[in-house]
Amino acid sequence: MEHVRAVEWAPSGQAVRIIDQRRLPGAFIERDLTTVDEVVEAIQTLAVRGAPAIGVAGALGLVAALLPYGGEPLPEFLVRARPIAARIRSARPTAVNLPVAVDRMVAMLDRAAAQGLDTPAVLEALHREATAILDEDRAMCRRIGEWGAPLLHDGARLVTHCNAGALATSGMGTALAPVYVAAECGRHVEVFAGETRPLLQGARLTAWELSRAGVPVTVVTDGTVASLMRAGRVDLCIVGADRIAANGDAANKIGTYAVAVAARHHGIPFYVAAPTSTIDPHAATGADIPIEERARAEVSGGGQTVPDAAAVFNPAFDVTPAELISGIITDTGLYRPPYRFA
Amino acid sequence: MEHVRAVEWAPSGQAVRIIDQRRLPGAFIERDLTTVDEVVEAIQTLAVRGAPAIGVAGALGLVAALLPYGGEPLPEFLVRARPIAARIRSARPTAVNLPVAVDRMVAMLDRAAAQGLDTPAVLEALHREATAILDEDRAMCRRIGEWGAPLLHDGARLVTHCNAGALATSGMGTALAPVYVAAECGRHVEVFAGETRPLLQGARLTAWELSRAGVPVTVVTDGTVASLMRAGRVDLCIVGADRIAANGDAANKIGTYAVAVAARHHGIPFYVAAPTSTIDPHAATGADIPIEERARAEVSGGGQTVPDAAAVFNPAFDVTPAELISGIITDTGLYRPPYRFA
Repeated sequence: MEHVRAVEWAPSGQAVRIIDQRRLPGAFIERDLTTVDEVVEAIQTLAVRGAPAIGVAGALGLVAALLPYGGEPLPEFLVRARPIAARIRSARPTAVNLPVAVDRMVAMLDRAAAQGLDTPAVLEALHREATAILDEDRAMCRRIGEWGAPLLHDGARLVTHCNAGALATSGMGTALAPVYVAAECGRHVEVFAGETRPLLQGARLTAWELSRAGVPVTVVTDGTVASLMRAGRVDLCIVGADRIAANGDAANKIGTYAVAVAARHHGIPFYVAAPTSTIDPHAATGADIPIEERARAEVSGGGQTVPDAAAVFNPAFDVTPAELISGIITDTGLYRPPYRFA
Repeated sequence: MEHVRAVEWAPSGQAVRIIDQRRLPGAFIERDLTTVDEVVEAIQTLAVRGAPAIGVAGALGLVAALLPYGGEPLPEFLVRARPIAARIRSARPTAVNLPVAVDRMVAMLDRAAAQGLDTPAVLEALHREATAILDEDRAMCRRIGEWGAPLLHDGARLVTHCNAGALATSGMGTALAPVYVAAECGRHVEVFAGETRPLLQGARLTAWELSRAGVPVTVVTDGTVASLMRAGRVDLCIVGADRIAANGDAANKIGTYAVAVAARHHGIPFYVAAPTSTIDPHAATGADIPIEERARAEVSGGGQTVPDAAAVFNPAFDVTPAELISGIITDTGLYRPPYRFA
């Protein structure tokens, strides 16, 4: 029951190996990134996506992009390294993980330089730091999986939304981590993946990584989930989160809230799984989380499905209020309501 | 505030004029059908769709297909007419309206022949009967509109799902009829159209006919509707129905039930609008209504969005239980719970 690896070192240790998610599920193509242009392009075009995965790709990518310059004297190397780091840091604007990871790499660069190391030794320190970021992300996923797996009894039937799986991290994912851990323990778990309009991450990505790992998965349109619940075919829901407010309100892909409402109506537990780094103590409630509105073409594209005269409302995320969340599964524990994060 | 006309006589009175719904919303093309092949093909390929519209198209189409044979002696004419009627009657298997309309036309043919009329007089009787079917369908729609319009105050914001509008009937539709009548009365009504995956009738058809009639309409993904309700942007929901059980349980396009559950959670009224002919007294509850399961490709099509190894569950309809339905708007009145149709 091995999950796919969305971001890792290539066997040489000198390139970032990613799964090109633009090509899924039609083609499974791994790409090795070695230049800053390749790293930035992969992040910007969503070849690698998911906040944790992007952070790891940025850290590993910075090292890969700097490796050719190991022969330079340290002052020249430092002058070269900073703008490369800055370019990677700003490849995508929203998720906090990418700047956090790059800033941590630059801090290590500064520390190593201050210690009077030569360029090869500085590069070695950067490589170790990037590997630490990778390992920590994987460990974070596994801890979420271990905290969440007890919720999945043998035969459990789970609903998820969007993709908060291995493809969104460098490890076994967040919302799907409990599924992988339960499967490792020999429990049979089935997943219903809401296709997740408009960009279909559930159909394209969640269904792909679960079926590749041998977990039975069935794709349904988002409007079918409530009917499955009414038919008694769902035991629980686990979704990811992009940001969690101090009171437990959780922002996630648009459509998540509809799943939470349907779960409540049917008395089905609804869990959010995310690393504690997703909790934003500066947001008191979900009302403090800004919701990105995205392009009309995401909904109206694909053969002119919406007439020009009609408007389109296409928010990227919604907020599920804490009172609909049965528990928040994190790397530091399973929190139950009332939620008071600070 | 004129709604489109999905099925009507061409100005000559010798052809059925339909809007070719296969081309919407990209192109607005009207087609005049004059042969049995054209009529059957239009029904089978969904150029004309919606149970009431198909029934009307069948009746008018039968007359159009028979008009060239007005010079034949009656015995030859009758031998020619019956297989043509049979072909149209079986063009689509599911909706009851098509066989009901064609059977009514054949009964008129029999009556007229028994009265000793000549062929031109029989054709005239058939033309009158088809026009009666058309007029009755239009009147049915308008009565639904008049019963439902008082639910829509000035400024009302309505959610609907799929297309139960003018494009599904020969008149102003069923679920959308109250919108057209309220607009005629000068009230401002806004509509949120759920796009209705997998076939997108809400985005393609409901948005087209409403914007063409000057009614402001906004398309959202099906998973966005609950968020709109939470944001206080929805006053009521009106949807159509394919079959209504004696206890008020209503089968309609998949995703309808999810809208009903979200409406209940937010305390928003949820109405079903349908002609009384939709009520099936032989179905005691929704459990007696069979649900068609449709092809995987409807969900997985469009650029291989679902990996081959994943399953797809694609029911065409769901059943909304009577306890979630605030009222059933029909051509004979607005029924409130408890529903006891017999």
